[in-house]
Parts: sequence; C-alpha cells; structure tokens
Amino acid sequence: MVPLSDAQAHYLFGVMRLGVGAVLSLFNGHDGEWDGAVVQAGKRAGLLCVQGQTAPLIAPPDLWLLFAPVKKARTDVIVEKAVELGVARIVPVLTDYTNAERLRADKMQAHVIEAAEQCGATHLPEVAAPQKLALVLADWPAGRDLWFCDEARRGSPAGAQALPGPGAVLVGPEGGFSPAERAHLATKPFATGISLGPRILRAETAAIAALTLWQVTRGDWR
Amino acid sequence: MVPLSDAQAHYLFGVMRLGVGAVLSLFNGHDGEWDGAVVQAGKRAGLLCVQGQTAPLIAPPDLWLLFAPVKKARTDVIVEKAVELGVARIVPVLTDYTNAERLRADKMQAHVIEAAEQCGATHLPEVAAPQKLALVLADWPAGRDLWFCDEARRGSPAGAQALPGPGAVLVGPEGGFSPAERAHLATKPFATGISLGPRILRAETAAIAALTLWQVTRGDWR
Repeated sequence: MVPLSDAQAHYLFGVMRLGVGAVLSLFNGHDGEWDGAVVQAGKRAGLLCVQGQTAPLIAPPDLWLLFAPVKKARTDVIVEKAVELGVARIVPVLTDYTNAERLRADKMQAHVIEAAEQCGATHLPEVAAPQKLALVLADWPAGRDLWFCDEARRGSPAGAQALPGPGAVLVGPEGGFSPAERAHLATKPFATGISLGPRILRAETAAIAALTLWQVTRGDWR
Repeated sequence: MVPLSDAQAHYLFGVMRLGVGAVLSLFNGHDGEWDGAVVQAGKRAGLLCVQGQTAPLIAPPDLWLLFAPVKKARTDVIVEKAVELGVARIVPVLTDYTNAERLRADKMQAHVIEAAEQCGATHLPEVAAPQKLALVLADWPAGRDLWFCDEARRGSPAGAQALPGPGAVLVGPEGGFSPAERAHLATKPFATGISLGPRILRAETAAIAALTLWQVTRGDWR
C-alpha cells in the first residue's frame, strides 16, 4: 500500500477525478515502474495498492551534469533533458558570467520528478544545491573526469575520448566561461575541453549535445 | 544599399525606434555577417548601408533533417535546433502516427530566420514543403544515406558509422514509426536504424541527439 501526499491526492482525485479501482503507473526512482490501483480516493487519505511491475529500473551511468543556470524556461529545459538523457546527478554551478534569478534546488527537484513522469523515466537524478564553480572544482572527487564545453576552444571532438569510469559534463552560461575560469580549468588534470562544432549553441543545446556524446562514447548508449 | 521590407522597417523603426546612423548585424544566408548602418529610417522606405564584414559564412555540411511534426511548440524547437546545429535542409514528413496541426512551410521558414538571428547563424536552411514519408523514400536521391532513429530497434550507435558523403537524419513522431513504416525502411539500402540509448526521448531531444552524432562523426564537428 502506498499512501499519497496531500498534493498527490489533490491532483488525482480533485483534478483528474479518479475513483477507486483506477490504475496508475507508479515509480519511486529506485524500483522501476509498477501498476498501482486506487484503493481509497479521499483528498486527505488517498491510498494506492501496488500491483505488477511494468518496467525495470533503468539506472543512468555515473554521469553528472554541471550547468550554469540560465533563464528559468531554459533551465527547466536543461533539467528535463538531463532526465531524458540519463544523468545521475545535476549540479547547478555559479560562474563569473552566470546571470540567473534566485535558484531553488527543491523546485528543480520537483521539475525532475515532473520530467520523469512525462518521459516515462524510472530514475530520478539528484539535484545538488547551487555552488560556485571554483568551489566545485576545488572539491572535485578523485577518479571522476570532467568534459567542459568551450566555445573559445577548438578541442578534439568528444568522440575521441573513451575512457571508462565516472564522468561529468560542464556547460557554461550564454557568454561562455571567463578567461580566469578558462585558465583555472586548464590547471585541472581531470578537466578536458571539448568542441561542439563551429556554431554558437544555446546553453540547453550544448547540454543535450554534450550529454549525447558522453552517453554514446562512455555511457549506456554504447 | 539594402532596402528593407515593410515588416523589417516596422520592427526597426517602429518597435526598436532606431534612427539614422544606428548599426546592425546583417546576414542573408549566403555572404556571412556584415555591419549595416541605417541611412533612411522611414517606416515605408528604410534603407541600410552595408559596411565591413564581421563574420564569414559558416555553411552547414550537406545534412538534411527529416522530422515528423509534433505539437507547435516542439516543432518550433526542432526547427530552432536544426539551425543551431547546422542543417542544410529541413523536410517535414508525414508519417502514419503523425498527429500535427496544419503545417505551413512559410511559417517554418520564417522561424528559421528568427532562430538564425537569435543564435548568430550565418546560413539559413531551406524548409521543404511537408511530404508523406513514403513519397520521400520513393524519391530518395542517389548517394545520400539516411539515419533513422528507432526506439524499437537496438541498432549500433551512430558513432560506429563514419561514411563520407551527403546524409540525412529522420526522427519519427512521439509514438515512433508504424510496423509498416519500419518494414518499408528496412527494404531501403540507404537507410540505417540508429540507437539513441535505452530511454524514451522526446522528438526534439532525439533530433538534437541524432544531429549531434551525425555532426561529430560525419559533419563539421569532427
């Protein structure tokens, strides 16, 4: 039996007007997808009964997405696409050129759940609290390498890199990284600049392209 | 000297309130980007004087994007991303499961121009009139190969394919291709099914991922 939160009960019984016996797809981020039938349809005491499993958990590879938040609509797109493309952890980073409204990790986590519901994902990436890029780099875990997308740099395409192990992709803000950030990244042995072609890409496009390249060379699209 | 259309003059002088001497970035899809100064600021007789070139033309590789139109907002995203990622031609195709509102190629062409203005592209992909997929396949040009994104098929990742020559990427509608379409595609020697990983991707995400893989293995991201 799965008790529902007030918000869930309100949505299912107040908005969607479901009744006892209606069957839903359930997921919790860890156990795949299951059918669940409505047993009690009270707005304050909703209860579902879990039935058979309908899809296995598809856990993402150990891939982090670090991104400099942009305007809300595009930040929402980046979060949604990170869920679709299979990211384990989302880390908003504040860079020299980041120009974002106040960020709330809890709202981004809620958006992760919504995106997973929409695209049928069974895993929920964790959203970290926003942190300054310099602090993230100073506290970088051993054994994890980082691809950063650098428009100013004509690095080798990401396809050339196919090392095993945990990874991360870093996408800068519109306007790119500052010269100081670029110099700082160059001192980090775990960081590699990758090229995303000769055109200027929006932040969300760069994120999708970089995650795609990571997945196909190192992740579970191989 | 570049005369302005009524719509351009209205935007520049009516909405943006530019005056004589203001400098703009100009592009026509063929000659790169140029500075242009306002010489005459009449709402019916706007005139710009072309000055120095500020960016060269970055022509895309000979890559077509075929896609089954989805809802308008997502179709707009696909068109915008095709411009950003460097596509030469956009072909809306109607498939068995296509469920789109009435499509207008002229509106999509206008959206191409807007997307290019936004991302600083210097080339404008041509938008073809919407056509039935079967007809497009029947009339396929010799020497051009086609990658189609097939969720039902666990093909080799696109990265394994690195043939030279003109190409195309085909993205189906939400819901994928019908069994008949799949069977039809399988009979075409120029068509290869590619895998975009184990997760369900939205149409626009699949388009961006497939174009990225094409560009990095066969296009100008190499």
